[in-house]
Amino acid sequence: MHALAPDMSMSENGNRPLDVLETSVGESVTIQLKDGERYEGELVGYDQHMNLVVEEDEDTTIIRGDNVVTIRP
Amino acid sequence: MHALAPDMSMSENGNRPLDVLETSVGESVTIQLKDGERYEGELVGYDQHMNLVVEEDEDTTIIRGDNVVTIRP
Amino acid sequence: MHALAPDMSMSENGNRPLDVLETSVGESVTIQLKDGERYEGELVGYDQHMNLVVEEDEDTTIIRGDNVVTIRP
Amino acid sequence: MHALAPDMSMSENGNRPLDVLETSVGESVTIQLKDGERYEGELVGYDQHMNLVVEEDEDTTIIRGDNVVTIRP
Amino acid sequence: MHALAPDMSMSENGNRPLDVLETSVGESVTIQLKDGERYEGELVGYDQHMNLVVEEDEDTTIIRGDNVVTIRP
Amino acid sequence: MHALAPDMSMSENGNRPLDVLETSVGESVTIQLKDGERYEGELVGYDQHMNLVVEEDEDTTIIRGDNVVTIRP
Amino acid sequence: MHALAPDMSMSENGNRPLDVLETSVGESVTIQLKDGERYEGELVGYDQHMNLVVEEDEDTTIIRGDNVVTIRP
Repeated sequence: MHALAPDMSMSENGNRPLDVLETSVGESVTIQLKDGERYEGELVGYDQHMNLVVEEDEDTTIIRGDNVVTIRP
Repeated sequence: MHALAPDMSMSENGNRPLDVLETSVGESVTIQLKDGERYEGELVGYDQHMNLVVEEDEDTTIIRGDNVVTIRP
Repeated sequence: MHALAPDMSMSENGNRPLDVLETSVGESVTIQLKDGERYEGELVGYDQHMNLVVEEDEDTTIIRGDNVVTIRP
Repeated sequence: MHALAPDMSMSENGNRPLDVLETSVGESVTIQLKDGERYEGELVGYDQHMNLVVEEDEDTTIIRGDNVVTIRP
Repeated sequence: MHALAPDMSMSENGNRPLDVLETSVGESVTIQLKDGERYEGELVGYDQHMNLVVEEDEDTTIIRGDNVVTIRP
Repeated sequence: MHALAPDMSMSENGNRPLDVLETSVGESVTIQLKDGERYEGELVGYDQHMNLVVEEDEDTTIIRGDNVVTIRP
Repeated sequence: MHALAPDMSMSENGNRPLDVLETSVGESVTIQLKDGERYEGELVGYDQHMNLVVEEDEDTTIIRGDNVVTIRP
C-alpha cells in the first residue's frame, strides 16, 4: 500500500513520519524552517529526505529537507 | 520481535535507543530540540533517523530527526 | 518519463520535489540560499543533491545544493 | 564476543570507542553535549551512531548521537 | 562522453551541475565560499563532491567542496 | 599488517591519517576539539570516524569524532 | 597508477583534487581550517575524506578533513 513501508504494522514504529506525510499530501500543512521562516499551504509532494513541495495561493515552493524543523498537518 | 534488532540480547548494546523509542509509542514523551523548543505529547511514530510524530491535544507534529537533542519517555 | 521516478503515481509522494524541479528546467525560478542570497534566473539544470545551475542574463551560476533553502518555480 | 568487532585484536584500533561503550552499559557515565548540557546517570544502551539511553534517578533520556561531545565512563 | 552522465539527454536534469563543471575545466571561474572568501582563477579539476582545484597566477588551491556556495564559469 | 590499508604502499596516500592513529595507540596525544577543549592523555583506541578513547590519569574519555579538529601524537 | 582514479584521462574532471593531493605528499603545503587556524608543513599523508597528516618541524598533526577549507601545495 505504501512503497516505503510495504509491510509495516501498527506495532512497529507506530505511524511513521513519512507515512503521516503521505496522508498529508493534498492537505493544508504548516512548515517551520530552521531560519525561522514559516510556510502555510497545501502539501503537494515530498521525498524521503523530507524535501517538500508546498503551494500557497498560486505559488509553488520547493523546500530542501535539511531546513525543516517541523511539519504540522 | 523488532525488525531493527531481531537478535539483540541484553548483553549487546543494552537497551538500544530505537528499542526504547519503540516501547514509547503510544506513551507521553518530552522532546527537546536544538533550537530550544520543547514538545510534550504522545509519541505516535518514529523512524531510524529519529524523525518523530508527536500528538499534543489534537495537533500532530512531524519533527525532522536532526533537530532532536533528547527524548524523555 | 522520468528516470528518478519511473513508476510514480500521484497517490505516492504526490508531486516529488525532484519532479517539480525537472518540470522547471528552462523556466524562471527564484532560489533562496541559507546565507540570505537570492538568485533569480532560468533553471538550466540540477541533480539529486539539489545542486543547481541557474542563468541570470548571460551569467551562469552553479549552486551547491546544501546552501539551498527554497526554490520557487 | 562483540558483534561490531568480532575479530578485533588489541593490536588493531586499540580499545575501540564502541567497545568501551559496550563495557560501560549498566555503569555510571557522564555525557557532555554540544549545547553545554551534561547528563550523569547509568548508561542503559547505545547504538553505532552513539545515540544513547541514560537513566538518572527514575528518568530515562534518549540522546541523539550527533549532540554528544564526550562520554566518560 | 562523460562518465558521470553517460546517457543523459537534455530532457532529463537539463545541464547537470557536474557537466557544467566539466566544461569549465581549463576556463576561468569565480568561486564563492561560505566564509566569504572568493577565489578567481582557472578551474584545474573537480570531483563529485565539488572538491575543486583552482589556479590563480602560479598558485594552486585545493578547495574542500563543503565550503563552496557558488561557482561562476 | 593493517586491516584498513592492507596493501597500501608509501607511494599511495603517504602515511594515511588512520595509520598514523594506529601507530599512536598506547602513546601520548593532544586532541583539539571544535569547542576549544583540549585533551591530553594516552590514546587508548579509535575507529574509522575518528571516534577516540583517551585516558588522562585514571579517567577514560570517549570523544565523538565529529568534534575533533586535530590530533597530535 | 592511482587507485582512486585508475582510468582517468585529462579530459575528465581535469586534475582531480585527490590526485593533486597525491602529488603533494612529501611537499610543503599550507592548510587553512574553518576555525581560522593555518598549518604549514610537509604533507605526510591523506585519505579520501581529506583527513590529513602534516609535519611541522618535528611535530606531526592529524587534521580531521571536515575542518579543512583549502590546501595550497
